[in-house]
Amino acid sequence: MDGGDGDLLMQRLQAVAARVETTLGSLLPASSRPYARVIEAMRYASLDGGKRLRPFLAVESAALFDVPEDRALRAGAAVEMVHCYSLVHDDLPAMDDSDLRRGRPTAHKRFDEAIAILAGDGLLTEAFTVLSDPATHPEAAVRIDLVAALAQASGKDGMVGGQMIDISPERCDLDLQGIKTLQALKTGALIGFSCQAGAILGQATAEERARLVGYAADLGLCFQIVDDLLDVTSTSEDLGKPAGQDAEMGKATFVALLGVEGARAEAELLADAAADRLAAFGPRAATLRQLTRFVLERSS
Amino acid sequence: MDGGDGDLLMQRLQAVAARVETTLGSLLPASSRPYARVIEAMRYASLDGGKRLRPFLAVESAALFDVPEDRALRAGAAVEMVHCYSLVHDDLPAMDDSDLRRGRPTAHKRFDEAIAILAGDGLLTEAFTVLSDPATHPEAAVRIDLVAALAQASGKDGMVGGQMIDISPERCDLDLQGIKTLQALKTGALIGFSCQAGAILGQATAEERARLVGYAADLGLCFQIVDDLLDVTSTSEDLGKPAGQDAEMGKATFVALLGVEGARAEAELLADAAADRLAAFGPRAATLRQLTRFVLERSS
Repeated sequence: MDGGDGDLLMQRLQAVAARVETTLGSLLPASSRPYARVIEAMRYASLDGGKRLRPFLAVESAALFDVPEDRALRAGAAVEMVHCYSLVHDDLPAMDDSDLRRGRPTAHKRFDEAIAILAGDGLLTEAFTVLSDPATHPEAAVRIDLVAALAQASGKDGMVGGQMIDISPERCDLDLQGIKTLQALKTGALIGFSCQAGAILGQATAEERARLVGYAADLGLCFQIVDDLLDVTSTSEDLGKPAGQDAEMGKATFVALLGVEGARAEAELLADAAADRLAAFGPRAATLRQLTRFVLERSS
Repeated sequence: MDGGDGDLLMQRLQAVAARVETTLGSLLPASSRPYARVIEAMRYASLDGGKRLRPFLAVESAALFDVPEDRALRAGAAVEMVHCYSLVHDDLPAMDDSDLRRGRPTAHKRFDEAIAILAGDGLLTEAFTVLSDPATHPEAAVRIDLVAALAQASGKDGMVGGQMIDISPERCDLDLQGIKTLQALKTGALIGFSCQAGAILGQATAEERARLVGYAADLGLCFQIVDDLLDVTSTSEDLGKPAGQDAEMGKATFVALLGVEGARAEAELLADAAADRLAAFGPRAATLRQLTRFVLERSS
């Protein structure tokens, strides 16, 4: 990726992130109801933070099929709500016990544990409210397809299952295949949904959808390997969350199993493979192809 | 309700509860995957327990419109999953810190806090997987209607909002209207969904659906008042959960505000009002009408 392409991609990422922020803010308006505090916590956990990678994937995959952007932004906001709920629950004392997220106190530090649990529950539920609204797509068949795909990606055979492996006693001793399974469930499934969302909204063919699923699988794995690399090569300040945690907890990671150089090489292979999956879409998929380099080269 | 009607209703409740159990068991099969433990916790939290009042309401309201019972049972299983998830999260140390539920250790005592949080998340998500499956109804428009209604009832403006009020510092000083709002959100919304589910599956008229919403509102409030009464008049052994907790925590309750006699009278009025809401359905609604007496006279 030359400098010009990179700059254009960064501009596009920032522009979409700004529209995601607006969408999330209008879907989660501040409230004066007697339960306003949980809504405040839901807003705290989801607004003003993150790269918005998942909504970006939804928006860009939808653009391949000329889906109106307001629909893609709603699907993107829904997946971001699920992502943010998972961070809130993962950060709880009973789980990772993290104090810092995106450079700010985690939800249970800023509010309290009970409110953080509820805010997570509320964000997960709200995602389904957003997807089931006719504003997301006029056809009920499309909306139910989105709901089914998001529930599958988030539930016991997706993100929840992955998190279960991540907190299990066996976590420290996983081999390479075990870590790939963990990643495919814990982060891959939701990234997969994000890319599928565009195909579902665009009523794409099964072949087009499968292509995006393949892209997401390679990209998601690449993303996780880079995460593992950043955990050993970055500072907490750069990451906005504690660095060096994986090694400290004795977790098996791609870096621990492959070494820094080996992990880096594997991530590069995956970034290229992901880009190749989109060849059939031609120049329309240029942004999604460039994104593979961004995921590879990101520093936080 | 004379003895004969009561016996018939009990038989019907037990028969439906058995079919709900079978449905839940087949929707949540035991697993040998690496994340089997969270599935075990989801099964522990949802199988072999409870009156299954919400699924019963779904099944009986669906019967008014000749909905095939397997569809009603799926909607009933979905709402029971949401109910059970809410119990698991409410019982957590950061919330009510309860050790006992349905006469057994709560999920976080039987497993641990992290697994209990995840099992709750998994049950909530699984409910949407169940509703979005074509087996629940062949028409996507019906399924998305169910999803939207369940998400609304469970989320920030429903059960989550109610729970937020329940754990707030203002909880102890609520007046009668405040407690009614709390109840309508925390327990009423899900009971309302259960009754609506039959109307949605049966593609009932708006008027028929509104009638069931009214019935559910009266029944739900009656149910909560009886809950408050049982908390002061029953033993922990009878309830299968700790008795006397509300008074101990200084919570405003219907009993605290109306007295035992006043609360009992209000519950009786509501049971009668709920039954009257169903007059237009004629003899077909006999079971739902009898249920109002069961809710009033239950001892656990």
